Amino acid sequence: MVAALNAAYARLKTNAKRLNDTLQYSCQWGSTPDGGMNRLSGNDDDQKVRDWFVAEVTRYGCSHQVDAMGNIFAIRPGQNNTLPPIALGSHLDTQPTGGRYDGILGVLCALEVLRVIHEANITTYAPLAIVNWTNEEGARFSPAMLGSGVWAGEFSTEYGHSRVSSEGTTMGQELQRIGYLGSTPCSYQANPLLAHFEVHIEQGPILDVAEKPVGVVKGAQAIRWYRLAVRGREAHTGSTPMDRRSDALLAAAKMIVEVNKIATTAPLSTRGARGTIAVINSGPQSINTIAGQVTMNLDIRSPFDQDIEEIEKLCKQGFEAIGEEHGTSLEMECIWTSPATNFHPLMVECVRQSAKSIDCHHEIISGAGHDSVYTSRKVPTAMIFARCRDGISHNPAEYSRPEDCAAAGEVLLGAYLRYDEHIRQQNESKTEE
Amino acid sequence: MVAALNAAYARLKTNAKRLNDTLQYSCQWGSTPDGGMNRLSGNDDDQKVRDWFVAEVTRYGCSHQVDAMGNIFAIRPGQNNTLPPIALGSHLDTQPTGGRYDGILGVLCALEVLRVIHEANITTYAPLAIVNWTNEEGARFSPAMLGSGVWAGEFSTEYGHSRVSSEGTTMGQELQRIGYLGSTPCSYQANPLLAHFEVHIEQGPILDVAEKPVGVVKGAQAIRWYRLAVRGREAHTGSTPMDRRSDALLAAAKMIVEVNKIATTAPLSTRGARGTIAVINSGPQSINTIAGQVTMNLDIRSPFDQDIEEIEKLCKQGFEAIGEEHGTSLEMECIWTSPATNFHPLMVECVRQSAKSIDCHHEIISGAGHDSVYTSRKVPTAMIFARCRDGISHNPAEYSRPEDCAAAGEVLLGAYLRYDEHIRQQNESKTEE
Repeated sequence: MVAALNAAYARLKTNAKRLNDTLQYSCQWGSTPDGGMNRLSGNDDDQKVRDWFVAEVTRYGCSHQVDAMGNIFAIRPGQNNTLPPIALGSHLDTQPTGGRYDGILGVLCALEVLRVIHEANITTYAPLAIVNWTNEEGARFSPAMLGSGVWAGEFSTEYGHSRVSSEGTTMGQELQRIGYLGSTPCSYQANPLLAHFEVHIEQGPILDVAEKPVGVVKGAQAIRWYRLAVRGREAHTGSTPMDRRSDALLAAAKMIVEVNKIATTAPLSTRGARGTIAVINSGPQSINTIAGQVTMNLDIRSPFDQDIEEIEKLCKQGFEAIGEEHGTSLEMECIWTSPATNFHPLMVECVRQSAKSIDCHHEIISGAGHDSVYTSRKVPTAMIFARCRDGISHNPAEYSRPEDCAAAGEVLLGAYLRYDEHIRQQNESKTEE
Repeated sequence: MVAALNAAYARLKTNAKRLNDTLQYSCQWGSTPDGGMNRLSGNDDDQKVRDWFVAEVTRYGCSHQVDAMGNIFAIRPGQNNTLPPIALGSHLDTQPTGGRYDGILGVLCALEVLRVIHEANITTYAPLAIVNWTNEEGARFSPAMLGSGVWAGEFSTEYGHSRVSSEGTTMGQELQRIGYLGSTPCSYQANPLLAHFEVHIEQGPILDVAEKPVGVVKGAQAIRWYRLAVRGREAHTGSTPMDRRSDALLAAAKMIVEVNKIATTAPLSTRGARGTIAVINSGPQSINTIAGQVTMNLDIRSPFDQDIEEIEKLCKQGFEAIGEEHGTSLEMECIWTSPATNFHPLMVECVRQSAKSIDCHHEIISGAGHDSVYTSRKVPTAMIFARCRDGISHNPAEYSRPEDCAAAGEVLLGAYLRYDEHIRQQNESKTEE
């Protein structure tokens, strides 16, 4: 049972124009001529937007801490400061050819909630934290969701610092260079949160098709990533008959088609399976030499852990048959795995109640990984999706209408205040006992 | 009708051990630890092997000329020096991960013929030229067969000089740097040849399967190269449903499979069609972003010009259907074309008669481009193939047995002497008239 919204809060509203104006303002750091963003984790633009973020939260009465992974926690005290804060967080870094909403909208919605509460002179029960997680994208330093992953104990801080970019610099060096290698331990134990809410653009077309501005996210898909290395035999394209080849790129092409077939065949397809190969490199890259080696990355997802196992099994079977046909060998290595996530039922209900009050929502499962997937392993977590046009993301054309952004912020405000009320009631009933 | 071999020449033999030892010796410049070669056109090792080649032909009584494309013509005078020389040529440059025989064997067989004739104190009727053509591979400076192409008037000298390597240096600069930017015009008119014979490894498995050491090459396949650019839509791999994607890499994979299907389906396949995509690049190369753009190179070949047209037509039809299925667009640009080549019938017959005398041959069509394809457009030309193990080429594992190399050299010697005799008889009958 979710606590009813405190009557004092019922009149609170987010400011759609302010939210959108601030978001666009913050995109001056890292914007690209095509309207997109290239604000890679730890680069100069990341430093500038962080400096702006810290100045902004300070202006609204927050102190802040930077942890050893550069995660920034802006803290606004509550009535009961013996409790850890309820966090509203996301990330300010982007893909190299990214858009203006992925991650950024979540931090900016949290900032808008802070502004509304500050201006209404409200002191919430638990302290509030606005969080910017470091390197969610994993585009410059692999893996993705590194800052939240270290905080949740998935990776060690040493591992996080040692990640290397393609230019040869490490995450730790770059945090030091931009002044965000903080002294607070990066740990859910040493620097705890009471809960974590996150607004994020959907990055898919489901809300657009359903014509709903906001998604109540019940959980996140299971994800598994693989490195595939196909080996054939280099040979001359002109003088090698078609039936005497071991063409690694032809075998790889059939594997790409096979993955697509598996993910689009019922019953896996009707349960939301996804299978994609998006990264490929072949050698020796000579127009008249049959490719002898190909490396690829495979990304498979499903809302159900058992379906992930099934997809993997079918891929392996299909790949083996292709290898036999073409005389190619295959190395297949799982490089990352994330089980299916179910968000915290009471927090999800807070999101749902808040969304219902403005009649705008659709229930959804996240297809993407998010910082909330890691936080949910340690603290109650829920997410709110904002509709994005045509489902386009990781692309300069990524776009969410200002009113959809505002609706997501409005739902965040209501969900957060409901959950804070729930915490108050829970603690007061304990005190009475 | 081919002239009978002059009786004085019947006892001449190439020296298998000397040929092989010299070939291996010449591979000290540019050899790689895996037994292969990396002697890119115009690099320091190319300079060293050229210096050695010039010293060697000088030792056997030749003068030499270097033309404006760095092609080296080592000339041994004949009885009638009003005639242009009969050339025996190939190339000393290699692929970056190449072997010890592609091109090199042809120059070394020519050198062995020179040695045999020199040691037997024979003065042939026409002068003899041993030719090293510059940048046959096109691996460092595109396109391939650049030196012979400029000589044959396919490209201008200025075009040849202006070719740029990936390091940013030009062919002309590198020829100057290594001392092989010669003063002789690079032109079949200003620096003519009477004919051109070339020994080359087969670079395919046909002789190996037929268990014949030598191929009598009747002609060369038509070749056409294309640049393909596929555009889809970048989107998130997790949150984009399978049926709402425009996946450029999936479409490209289906195109790779389609090309293979076209080239392996009768009747094109039974007439020797080849179709290969060996070069692929996709963007944005992010594991969780569906590829929005893919570039590839397509290589199609056939012994018959009309089949090339048919393959191109079927590819375009197939690619269009794939584009419609996936909502992707395609640019397809022909970047190089070479019609089917028929070598000079009388020279081919000289090769055949010479091969018959040692009972070792198989008739063959070249699947690869060669300097002889360009020379044949201006002067009578023929080729001799040497068997290579498993048909492997453009690979450090490329290998031709010393006895197969020697057989090819032996056939070259006999074919050359027969053609020289033919020229003598032709000229003497003219004189008598």
